[in-house]
Amino acid sequence: MNQLKNKQVLLISRPVGMPTQQNFEFKDIPVVEAKEGQVVVRTLYLSVDPYMRGRMNDSKSYIPPYQLNEVIAGGLVGEIVESKSELFKAGDKVIGMLGWQLYNTVDAKAVTKIDDSIAPVSAYLSVLGLTGLTAYFGLLDIGQPKEGETVVVSGAAGSVGMFVGQIAKIKGARVVGIAGSDDKCDYLKKELGFDATINYKTTENLDQALEEACPNGVDVYFDNVGGSISDAVMSLLNDYARIPLCGAISSYNSTDGDMGPRIQSRLIKTRSLIKGFVLSDYAARQSEGLQELGKWLTEGKLKYEETVVEGFDNVVEAFLQLFQGANLGKMLVKVSDSEF
Amino acid sequence: MNQLKNKQVLLISRPVGMPTQQNFEFKDIPVVEAKEGQVVVRTLYLSVDPYMRGRMNDSKSYIPPYQLNEVIAGGLVGEIVESKSELFKAGDKVIGMLGWQLYNTVDAKAVTKIDDSIAPVSAYLSVLGLTGLTAYFGLLDIGQPKEGETVVVSGAAGSVGMFVGQIAKIKGARVVGIAGSDDKCDYLKKELGFDATINYKTTENLDQALEEACPNGVDVYFDNVGGSISDAVMSLLNDYARIPLCGAISSYNSTDGDMGPRIQSRLIKTRSLIKGFVLSDYAARQSEGLQELGKWLTEGKLKYEETVVEGFDNVVEAFLQLFQGANLGKMLVKVSDSEF
Repeated sequence: MNQLKNKQVLLISRPVGMPTQQNFEFKDIPVVEAKEGQVVVRTLYLSVDPYMRGRMNDSKSYIPPYQLNEVIAGGLVGEIVESKSELFKAGDKVIGMLGWQLYNTVDAKAVTKIDDSIAPVSAYLSVLGLTGLTAYFGLLDIGQPKEGETVVVSGAAGSVGMFVGQIAKIKGARVVGIAGSDDKCDYLKKELGFDATINYKTTENLDQALEEACPNGVDVYFDNVGGSISDAVMSLLNDYARIPLCGAISSYNSTDGDMGPRIQSRLIKTRSLIKGFVLSDYAARQSEGLQELGKWLTEGKLKYEETVVEGFDNVVEAFLQLFQGANLGKMLVKVSDSEF
Repeated sequence: MNQLKNKQVLLISRPVGMPTQQNFEFKDIPVVEAKEGQVVVRTLYLSVDPYMRGRMNDSKSYIPPYQLNEVIAGGLVGEIVESKSELFKAGDKVIGMLGWQLYNTVDAKAVTKIDDSIAPVSAYLSVLGLTGLTAYFGLLDIGQPKEGETVVVSGAAGSVGMFVGQIAKIKGARVVGIAGSDDKCDYLKKELGFDATINYKTTENLDQALEEACPNGVDVYFDNVGGSISDAVMSLLNDYARIPLCGAISSYNSTDGDMGPRIQSRLIKTRSLIKGFVLSDYAARQSEGLQELGKWLTEGKLKYEETVVEGFDNVVEAFLQLFQGANLGKMLVKVSDSEF
């Protein structure tokens, strides 16, 4: 193993506002030798996700902040290149929350085997992984869309958003997607069957566009973005609306206090519910979610999309591009091909 | 009946911002004669409540707006002075949502008989009525306080707020009340057993005062007020906090858009739940609520307080005083004594 060259990405300073390349540093290191019970995992695909921005702050949240001068961690698909555990053999494909590096040497229990005969390995970083499950539980447990209701999803062309819209369609809802380019909007309508879309970047009057797209008001708002887009949706809530709060990407880099109209009066008038959630809240129901998602995938009811950036050296750039909305579907970094 | 003089209060213009006497008009009219199945109710006590401000706007909400040049309606306790229904006889005490006038002539089904041997009739406008039930369902159904948790209630010396605090104490929580005068704060601590109080009008640093009053963070925030007080509580939410949204009195007269820090990021971080509600959502469980409230009242576990303004001519003034926080407990107008 020691002749393999490892490389990792460290967080060297905490971003203020929008992160930049200067907050990160690439470092060459040797591959750590596996001890008894450990495995060495070669990275195939890395997942870059908006929630990681929160971990770059030194503040209390549902997962601890990244430590300065330590390797960034996130969702990762890889293959076992050396195993000192009876759980795995070389060539096994696995998924885990591991470091942004070419090779991770970890306890065998830190990774889970995946079946690449069902879907390509990268699918386990989206539809059969965090983003598919996040859409599934947030929409169905908190949003609870009913047939004929209107579901609005922001960040609709992102990896969570496009599953939310498709699952809402499966449940018989009218689905309105908000996204940041005409290409994305076209994709959502033509490929995924969304009923209406709004390009928030080119729409002159978002309130009016929303009103036109939601003639019967809004019953479920799956919120991935926060900010002024969410402000606008609030005025269209129907009675007993449900708002699963999944992300607030528009706020993550905010340095001005993220001010907007208060929503309490609106929530009282409509008796609406807002609930923040993270996927780990549903850990006990994970296999139920994966089973349903896998079934819809096999039946062709659920499509997934990836924006793949090539090369480990581009991982920071790929992460930064999330905040420009550069991705259609899951933003991934392809680090290496399988050697097995 | 026709020799009785009636008087009523009309809404003659919609308030912009804070209502004034000029939005209302007193009018002398004859008492309407009761038809078959109707009763004439002499008003004993009128309830003035913050939610009425919302009905003075011409906007969609959970109850229709007041119509211009029509009589204001609200909770009212009265006695039957004439009955053309077998449901009631003269002298019966009743409660209903009736007009702000000396006499209401209504279908017998519009009113409900109350038992003035259990408690004085006015209690049916607070602890055994809307505000007691609002506190009961909002706190227990949405807030769900557990023993040892911290419950913060704003508008704590109002009629809903003081029941919230007392019920939370019955359930074993640590209770922190936010109110607008030292007298109110003293009352909450000494008479009602609140663990800590904050006078938001004299506290120089509300964030710091809240932090000191809630060393273990906030598990339940029963929100009666909205605005900057609620902004401050948000930063202390514990994981899985619950926020029953009952009122937003600070916003009702706002004409500047009611801006504040957006709360989405905070709700995601803590996976908290916010839910707007109104009492009618719990209509099916009303008798359960009244039974529990009556039991606690009889056992001396629940105290109630009234601020009584004398005289029908002062009803508008009493309503306006709500927004100055003039009331300790339920704000009532005593219109006449029983003649039976």
